Amino acid sequence: MEMQDLTAIEAARRMRDGEMTAEEYTAACLARIEATEAQVQAWAHLDSEHALEQARLLDQVRQAGEPCGPLHGVPVGIKDIFDTRVLPTENGTAIDAGRQPDADARVVSLLREAGAVIMGKTVTTELAVYHPGKTRNPHNPDHTPGGSSSGSAAAVAAHMVPLSVGTQTNGSIVRPGAYCGVFGYKPTHGSISRHGGLVQSPPLDTVGVYGNTLQDAALLADVLAVYDERDPSMRPQARPQLLQLCESDPPLDPVFAFVKGPVWDQAEDETKDAFAELADFLGDRCREVTLPPPFDHAIALHRTIMLGDFAKSFRRYYEKKDLLSDALTAMIEEGQGVLAADYNTALDWVEVLNAGLDEIFETADAILTPAAPGTAPQGLDATGSPAFCTLWTLCGTPAVTLPLMQGENGLPMGVQLVGRRREDGRLLRSARWLVERVENAEGNE
Amino acid sequence: MEMQDLTAIEAARRMRDGEMTAEEYTAACLARIEATEAQVQAWAHLDSEHALEQARLLDQVRQAGEPCGPLHGVPVGIKDIFDTRVLPTENGTAIDAGRQPDADARVVSLLREAGAVIMGKTVTTELAVYHPGKTRNPHNPDHTPGGSSSGSAAAVAAHMVPLSVGTQTNGSIVRPGAYCGVFGYKPTHGSISRHGGLVQSPPLDTVGVYGNTLQDAALLADVLAVYDERDPSMRPQARPQLLQLCESDPPLDPVFAFVKGPVWDQAEDETKDAFAELADFLGDRCREVTLPPPFDHAIALHRTIMLGDFAKSFRRYYEKKDLLSDALTAMIEEGQGVLAADYNTALDWVEVLNAGLDEIFETADAILTPAAPGTAPQGLDATGSPAFCTLWTLCGTPAVTLPLMQGENGLPMGVQLVGRRREDGRLLRSARWLVERVENAEGNE
Repeated sequence: MEMQDLTAIEAARRMRDGEMTAEEYTAACLARIEATEAQVQAWAHLDSEHALEQARLLDQVRQAGEPCGPLHGVPVGIKDIFDTRVLPTENGTAIDAGRQPDADARVVSLLREAGAVIMGKTVTTELAVYHPGKTRNPHNPDHTPGGSSSGSAAAVAAHMVPLSVGTQTNGSIVRPGAYCGVFGYKPTHGSISRHGGLVQSPPLDTVGVYGNTLQDAALLADVLAVYDERDPSMRPQARPQLLQLCESDPPLDPVFAFVKGPVWDQAEDETKDAFAELADFLGDRCREVTLPPPFDHAIALHRTIMLGDFAKSFRRYYEKKDLLSDALTAMIEEGQGVLAADYNTALDWVEVLNAGLDEIFETADAILTPAAPGTAPQGLDATGSPAFCTLWTLCGTPAVTLPLMQGENGLPMGVQLVGRRREDGRLLRSARWLVERVENAEGNE
Repeated sequence: MEMQDLTAIEAARRMRDGEMTAEEYTAACLARIEATEAQVQAWAHLDSEHALEQARLLDQVRQAGEPCGPLHGVPVGIKDIFDTRVLPTENGTAIDAGRQPDADARVVSLLREAGAVIMGKTVTTELAVYHPGKTRNPHNPDHTPGGSSSGSAAAVAAHMVPLSVGTQTNGSIVRPGAYCGVFGYKPTHGSISRHGGLVQSPPLDTVGVYGNTLQDAALLADVLAVYDERDPSMRPQARPQLLQLCESDPPLDPVFAFVKGPVWDQAEDETKDAFAELADFLGDRCREVTLPPPFDHAIALHRTIMLGDFAKSFRRYYEKKDLLSDALTAMIEEGQGVLAADYNTALDWVEVLNAGLDEIFETADAILTPAAPGTAPQGLDATGSPAFCTLWTLCGTPAVTLPLMQGENGLPMGVQLVGRRREDGRLLRSARWLVERVENAEGNE
């Protein structure tokens, strides 16, 4: 196995044990980038020399016998909406061209503390909304990688880096993860600090992670899930032990609730078939649950909150709207008309809907549902539909996409699992069980 | 001294020590109510027999040698916007006439746990906004008691109960406290649970307390300041030791920042003169501080938030607007036009303004400012102006009104002290110092 194809966990172990150096590992990842970036175009800002310099310093730290962090020497890609004091942060818009922050976002400083190599900034859609960046799907360059965390998902899928950081305000972790065939994990809302990141909609904005294994994603989330009083959605809490929980054995085989959800009619036929098959494969570990009518409003409630917030959060961009896409301009203008009473009423629904979900989680460990209507659509002028993610972002529930299926076109298809709020460990444990169950079945075919 | 004129702290001590019974004390308070209620009209719902029954039960508890709570046997008045399962809760509106909740609000259950006698429900203005209830100022029945916590302030001022609970969304603790000549304390926003109380505007709604001494108010706040996850503005924190801090000696004599604030031109001449004299009396312990221009927007920012929230919180009342006052109807209708972007922008200012206040609190222990434009206005068709409280409610800072001055008409005039957020103990300590300094000076006259 090539060095850049190692899992982050295995690579970190080898570096800790002195079997390879951070410089060698970073150089291998840079070589992969060199070989594939022309086609994938995952990176907004990359400074190879800066990456190698960090790696050499980390090697010195280790050689001096100083403690190594859990990501010591592991290169990580950062969505270009998080401030970095060494690399520019342009938020996917010409309005911020050349913008150089003077401080690191909290997720970046946590990565540095953990010994990670800040590899570079990954491509985002315009202001992390819909209008695409330059990135292409690593599985087929004629198809979108999804958005808005396009570069983060593609870079991990192409094994340019083992780990990356993204965000989801609608479907921006799960959808690109599914389209690119990687593990994408959006923790419970308020788990990871957004300080120093682009603000879209505080009740919805959620930091998430990508890896090529579930365990890698859990490790990265463990590093990032640290209370930060500067993020008003966070509550003081102990650091989770997500990797440990993810690897632990469930007391019983988990039970999945197959939920078609409010946008099932948008799913492609092969998606519908694939999920029927998966539910069938799981047998008595899976039962279908129909969401009651209030859930049908989820898409509209989410839109009220998100666009109402765009009107405020993107005010300074709207002042230069000649440089914005027409689609985003229209969304901001729709948001300018959202009334405070409607906005706050929509927020109230979050608790009501979660109470409904809690009933499901009394008997099911996770909800099983598509990550997207189908595989990555052809064309680079759009990033696909986030609709299968909207409800879960609105509710702030943890969600993960697992690259367990494939479309007829050979592109990956994601299985989305959704957990109860603040029960991320249970979700990851159930997800690992499902991954192993499917892999074992494939091995037996 | 008559029993009903005791402080809550002294009464509680006597009951603990067996020097009087809860039944005797409650009966004495009921006798005072009997004698003065026709004039003051502080009570919306009062059930003497229920009050005496609670007191007798508490006497039995003590006689059985069981532990007594910090308010064992102390009668407390509750603003009629907090749910009580024994007495109706009508929120000051005919729309809720006869409404009987089936559970106690959190403040009520905390009072029961502390051994208090729930004396009855005190008069509030219409939905705790401006339109007056029936209550009159105990010092002169031709004058307003202020609002919206009219009955709670008046009942304590008339020594019908030693303690009462109110709320402030604009000026509803501090103004009635000042007009009625009692100590009114509005803690840092998010200190006391609002669960089971009328919702007006969550970013502003603050539970507060009244007593005839600062220490009594601090004791009541100690009982109520318990984390409740059902109140989204609360954060987990240890219970404060407000009474202890209030009674502690400051390391140095406190320094006061005399702030005229954004509505000084609304102050009456005698108020301006009185505060000039007070600042002069304090000499080098007081210096005038001018708030920078952003603070001039505070009234408008507060209005955007409050009315924007009224449109949502009072939706079910607005459906019966024939039963609402014209003034409140107009406020709700203004609120229906508030945009989400403006609402959230106004909320963002809270942190900006607090950063400005923090600078003041680096060198001053408390801000000294009027509680109201003057003494209680004549007439019962309005409750006076909350304008001198608005900024501090918006900022969520703790505030206390001290009955240290008097107008030419003989009515009380309040001195408002404002502290830094989450430094309520420092505020109360500074307030006690000021009370004693003024009382000593008066004793020497």
